[in-house]
Amino acid sequence: MEALNYNKGQENWLVEERVFDERFTGKCESIFVQGNGYLGLRNALEEQYLSSTRGLFITGTFNKASAEEVTELPNAPDITNTELTINGERFCMKDGNTKEYSRVLDLRTGETVRSLIWTGKDGAEVKLEFHRFVSAHNVHLIGNCMEITPLNGDIEIHVSSGIDGQVTNGGAQHFVETAKRVFEDRYLAFAAETTESHVLVSLHTTHRVTPVPEKVRTSNDRRRVHSEFDLTVKAGQTARIEKISTVFSSRDLEYADLSAEEAKRHPEEDGFALLKQAEGKGYDGLFAESCRAWGEFWDSQDIRIDSEDGFDQLAIRFALYHLEIMTRKGDGRVGIAAKGLSGEGYKGHSFWDTETFIFPYFQMARPETAKTLLEYRYNGLYGARLKASENGFEGAMYPWESAWISDGEVTPWLLGVDIHTGKPSYCLTGKIEIHITADIIYALWQYYIATGDEAFMERCGYEMILDTARFWNSRLEWIEENGRYEIRDVIGPDEYKEHVDNNAYTNYLVQYNMKLASNIISHLQGEKPELYRKLSKLCDLQVLKRELDDKLPQLYLPQPDPDTGIIPQFDGYFDLKTLDLTKYKTAPVVGTIFQDYSNEDVQSYQVAKQADVVELLYQLEDLVSPEVKRENYFYYEARTLHDSSLSKAIHSVTACDLGLEQEAYDMFQKAAATDLGPEMRSSDAGIHSANMGGIWQDVVMGFGGMRISRGKLRINPHLPKAWKHLCYSVYWQGSKVTVSINCEKICLTNAGKPFAAIVNGKDVMLQQGENEFPMV
Amino acid sequence: MEALNYNKGQENWLVEERVFDERFTGKCESIFVQGNGYLGLRNALEEQYLSSTRGLFITGTFNKASAEEVTELPNAPDITNTELTINGERFCMKDGNTKEYSRVLDLRTGETVRSLIWTGKDGAEVKLEFHRFVSAHNVHLIGNCMEITPLNGDIEIHVSSGIDGQVTNGGAQHFVETAKRVFEDRYLAFAAETTESHVLVSLHTTHRVTPVPEKVRTSNDRRRVHSEFDLTVKAGQTARIEKISTVFSSRDLEYADLSAEEAKRHPEEDGFALLKQAEGKGYDGLFAESCRAWGEFWDSQDIRIDSEDGFDQLAIRFALYHLEIMTRKGDGRVGIAAKGLSGEGYKGHSFWDTETFIFPYFQMARPETAKTLLEYRYNGLYGARLKASENGFEGAMYPWESAWISDGEVTPWLLGVDIHTGKPSYCLTGKIEIHITADIIYALWQYYIATGDEAFMERCGYEMILDTARFWNSRLEWIEENGRYEIRDVIGPDEYKEHVDNNAYTNYLVQYNMKLASNIISHLQGEKPELYRKLSKLCDLQVLKRELDDKLPQLYLPQPDPDTGIIPQFDGYFDLKTLDLTKYKTAPVVGTIFQDYSNEDVQSYQVAKQADVVELLYQLEDLVSPEVKRENYFYYEARTLHDSSLSKAIHSVTACDLGLEQEAYDMFQKAAATDLGPEMRSSDAGIHSANMGGIWQDVVMGFGGMRISRGKLRINPHLPKAWKHLCYSVYWQGSKVTVSINCEKICLTNAGKPFAAIVNGKDVMLQQGENEFPMV
Repeated sequence: MEALNYNKGQENWLVEERVFDERFTGKCESIFVQGNGYLGLRNALEEQYLSSTRGLFITGTFNKASAEEVTELPNAPDITNTELTINGERFCMKDGNTKEYSRVLDLRTGETVRSLIWTGKDGAEVKLEFHRFVSAHNVHLIGNCMEITPLNGDIEIHVSSGIDGQVTNGGAQHFVETAKRVFEDRYLAFAAETTESHVLVSLHTTHRVTPVPEKVRTSNDRRRVHSEFDLTVKAGQTARIEKISTVFSSRDLEYADLSAEEAKRHPEEDGFALLKQAEGKGYDGLFAESCRAWGEFWDSQDIRIDSEDGFDQLAIRFALYHLEIMTRKGDGRVGIAAKGLSGEGYKGHSFWDTETFIFPYFQMARPETAKTLLEYRYNGLYGARLKASENGFEGAMYPWESAWISDGEVTPWLLGVDIHTGKPSYCLTGKIEIHITADIIYALWQYYIATGDEAFMERCGYEMILDTARFWNSRLEWIEENGRYEIRDVIGPDEYKEHVDNNAYTNYLVQYNMKLASNIISHLQGEKPELYRKLSKLCDLQVLKRELDDKLPQLYLPQPDPDTGIIPQFDGYFDLKTLDLTKYKTAPVVGTIFQDYSNEDVQSYQVAKQADVVELLYQLEDLVSPEVKRENYFYYEARTLHDSSLSKAIHSVTACDLGLEQEAYDMFQKAAATDLGPEMRSSDAGIHSANMGGIWQDVVMGFGGMRISRGKLRINPHLPKAWKHLCYSVYWQGSKVTVSINCEKICLTNAGKPFAAIVNGKDVMLQQGENEFPMV
Repeated sequence: MEALNYNKGQENWLVEERVFDERFTGKCESIFVQGNGYLGLRNALEEQYLSSTRGLFITGTFNKASAEEVTELPNAPDITNTELTINGERFCMKDGNTKEYSRVLDLRTGETVRSLIWTGKDGAEVKLEFHRFVSAHNVHLIGNCMEITPLNGDIEIHVSSGIDGQVTNGGAQHFVETAKRVFEDRYLAFAAETTESHVLVSLHTTHRVTPVPEKVRTSNDRRRVHSEFDLTVKAGQTARIEKISTVFSSRDLEYADLSAEEAKRHPEEDGFALLKQAEGKGYDGLFAESCRAWGEFWDSQDIRIDSEDGFDQLAIRFALYHLEIMTRKGDGRVGIAAKGLSGEGYKGHSFWDTETFIFPYFQMARPETAKTLLEYRYNGLYGARLKASENGFEGAMYPWESAWISDGEVTPWLLGVDIHTGKPSYCLTGKIEIHITADIIYALWQYYIATGDEAFMERCGYEMILDTARFWNSRLEWIEENGRYEIRDVIGPDEYKEHVDNNAYTNYLVQYNMKLASNIISHLQGEKPELYRKLSKLCDLQVLKRELDDKLPQLYLPQPDPDTGIIPQFDGYFDLKTLDLTKYKTAPVVGTIFQDYSNEDVQSYQVAKQADVVELLYQLEDLVSPEVKRENYFYYEARTLHDSSLSKAIHSVTACDLGLEQEAYDMFQKAAATDLGPEMRSSDAGIHSANMGGIWQDVVMGFGGMRISRGKLRINPHLPKAWKHLCYSVYWQGSKVTVSINCEKICLTNAGKPFAAIVNGKDVMLQQGENEFPMV
């Protein structure tokens, strides 16, 4: 970790970059991304570098760049790029001399501060500070502030700053400019519309400059509008240039009730009105509002780890920060993207990453937002039904990749033509990685157990369970020679294996989904006849139940091998060749195996990209005995490259369950290093959203021992040796429970009514207030 | 002229940049543009700089970036950008130390050579040479070559080079990627299609590397395909990386007979076939072919000036070089763009610049190409008729701006919304700068006189004359109170005056056009009855003739003021206020007046952008007496800012005619400095095509005294004092005439039959072979 440092000086709230290296600008652009779930702003520096990838992503503004491509989240017009000229020389850290460089992301406030002393060719020494935040108080607001202090003589500076719509996603353009304006010589406005989906985005910006420049010139060219001004700054004095910006789109939650055309009438007016209102507060005032919102967030969400290595504390806060800014609150029309709002990777699409890796955090710590995430999937039933019907099935088959609610499957089918063979190369996940449908239902049911949110179940949840069960009912294949139902030709969680039959993870989760539906039909028929009648519009529920009940006992569920106890990942897994993976498991970069083996080769070996059977044994924790689980863990971990960021944290949690403390802690630190580690290229296309949820699961569900077991909250902690104390909070049935663990005792503070729980394996009642238990 | 230098060492064939300054990369990108009329390649450097504007323009591939914009010539995928890494450090002249820098455009061969010695951070000193040419032999070929010689130790280099389709015109994207391939691990292919016009462009490239790299990796991302390889280069040895590329489009002349859809099937195959064939010849072989073609060009086209100041010789060669590369030969579907193929300025459109400023060169020196240029206007009759009819007129009203032959008027009507007032800002030239229609006919008739090309006249020319006269016939307005026909609400050549009535230039040229048509109707009726019948499809020619003959004597032609002799530029010109223009006439940058005056202000003063009455008196040289012309010259020159590049050369020629030798020479040198001078920003958007023709007119028609007078070739030279000798060639009725002038004599070598001419004001017969006359 040469250039990137974390700072323990302030209770592990800061991530700091101490060396600027143009080769690696992508790293901090991504991991220092700022946002609020509505928008995400990559932390590209004000001055331009060839390696910069600026990015501003507004949730839900999906567009197709061309008919041949799938929809993606467009890179919106930029307001960060600012050209600063000092004594006629353009400021650039590649020129002149830069010292005392530091760029810090303060997780507590969401602000980034870059400071440095720069000496230009003419010897002028200037202290520069750049501040930036995206408001947590008003999601449409962005603040920038630049302070310039000449140290050894007066300087002349020139600033050019505005709104730049010359943006693309990796070279593909999504917008047509629709308006650019200057109002009252100081408010810049720029609006553009996406080419295919016709979403209007509107940006406004204004500058507050001290000392006030004599003249501000505003000008525009293609897709750009900007202000320019000159200042003389005396030695020792500080020029301050604040830039306040607003961002709106016609897909904003505020306009959700309007038609697409009507919605387009509002962003420009609202953006301008907000800008004028915000201007008076200035950077400091707006930042103070945002700080208060962040303060409330941390007051309720902070997890404290008292560890020998402060990195652990920083890592969980870093994960919480990103979980917060990647997630739009209260808008059930948008999901969480695989890269959050931090980069162009995965096109802003949502995968099972949301439900399986990120959702547990929201379910336990922020159930209101968890509900919104499930509403996104409820709204997505439209696309899921479309996909089922397109594939010849019934019910709802969730898209592997989701974008806007009405899009349906958006996995790019044609990945492109193999440039060597000219043969088209296809992405199979959208067709055969089907487990996501059951994953969503698994998450939904966990949510219901944890919250008891019957209203949501009645409005959305039961329908989701029934219609997905209809899909599975139509998807199961009767295999006459085996006399059983099977699920053939799928991709399981391990994506290094395509076209497999009876992936254990998939089959067990499908069973879970189908069983749930069968039970719910009985339940609704008895308890909620009106809802039952309403849901009968889907199909004859009695026929469905009969078919489910008929098929469930005959659904093939791969069993542990009688000799070894190992559950085959899929049919024929044990017949695959083995390979010495040492080289690839220790390689610093993922995917190293493809330097030596082709995709076809990799299919034929016992080598996994990520947790698959291990994921199954984590999610369905009572499926096998601890001994069998242990055997499976070691067997499969040895064969897993962790080339997916969805792997290490899950292995760590499972290692916790198995009492493998050192293994668990090592895996945790590796998982935490995915974005926050020394590999400077790994985050270029954006942060790893799922892993942020994985880190939370690891801390709370692994070391913190929190799980839902037999319908109850269970706390079986496994503190690593290095940790003196761990404190987190979860909600159970609406009650906040604060869990404080050290090596001697577990203290559970229940802010609500008493409820039955399991602590250290024993059934207990958690009374209101503090409940103390000894560590075992 | 700090950074840019011209070199007199090699008979004034070289333009050299001696200092690299990132602020001014646009200058040499434009003025060092390479091409062949089919394509133009800006001389952007191999390594990327923030200020770089790469550009590859393929004639005729026009496209509209959006429905709101006019068609423009798209920037095609790039093959120049090459990333070179030396000992792990990316080569960039902003880093490390650069010495002995030189970039030279050799006008004789069309090759650019950049050489320098670069020292990286680790102290490795490396000599680098970059060669580039665009083939004059096969218009589809581009050659690049990079030579790397470590001077003080072995080095490791890494090269990444390919085809980059992530290109835009000022941020607006014109292409959708349609294919990218690698064949045989070494041929890269990229194809893309324009979004609206569906023109396919196909590029192929391959690398020839010495020493042969161990492994070449090919990879691709969005809109890009490239090769990467590593080399170890021993101290003192030279690594050589040749890159041969081919460029085709579905609008190429080769496919002119095919439908648009059929044409799209060929470029990829043809591009690949040519690449394979070209590869074997290598850079040197292909360059040798191109050199031979350039040699033939210079053998026939060079103009020699023996002057005290070598700059004059360089300037005319520079103009000839650009006239050659901006003009597509043999393809009557494409015109000459206002910036040639050297930049995005003026969107690749053709203006009156072609006929009035560039055409005389082709007419006199390359009549075959002049014919092609007229064919472009003949093919443009479709659009001209469309425009006339859209504006409520008859006949053919030529577009002020032309692109593809079927486009009609492509002047952007809505320039955009005034960013301050929100009011739309319109470009009036496409509506009311109507003189271009007569300008085209003027050029056509001059061509006919000079060549006697009756076949072209019968096929195209007569129809153009008649149908434009029909337009004028419908455009003239009868003004009852004045008892005459007038032409109101126009823009004349001076674009600082809008909505003027009876612009002298316009009215006289219209008279010329109408008179010609009237005479031609009689001529055709008598001499070419079949053609007469054919052309009668336009209208009843007798009625047309009657109307023309009726209106011509009543057409108002502004006359010299009886007191001053000054012809009013338009009605009421003398009532305008005067202004002291000293500040603006001496300003280094054009348009400086707008720093102090608004567009509306400028309308109200006697201040002109460019030659207007002076242009008239140049084109119709016998309109007034020399004395009156002289008065008008001084009167208007004092009021002209020369803010258009169409102004100085014409003033210089007129000064020659008036015997104002020093004035003419000063104006010539200023005209020559438009692109080749010290103003480092003036060429950013491309070179000034019209001025290249202006420089030729100045040398040949001004100082060289060549003119068409009373249907004859006239040579009345006016050598500036600084010139000892001038030698140029023109064609007269198919005969090449070489004109050699010194202070004592004029030697005219007639390669063809004897013909009557005027030399130094006297009627003479030019016999075959040498004809000598004393200078007067």
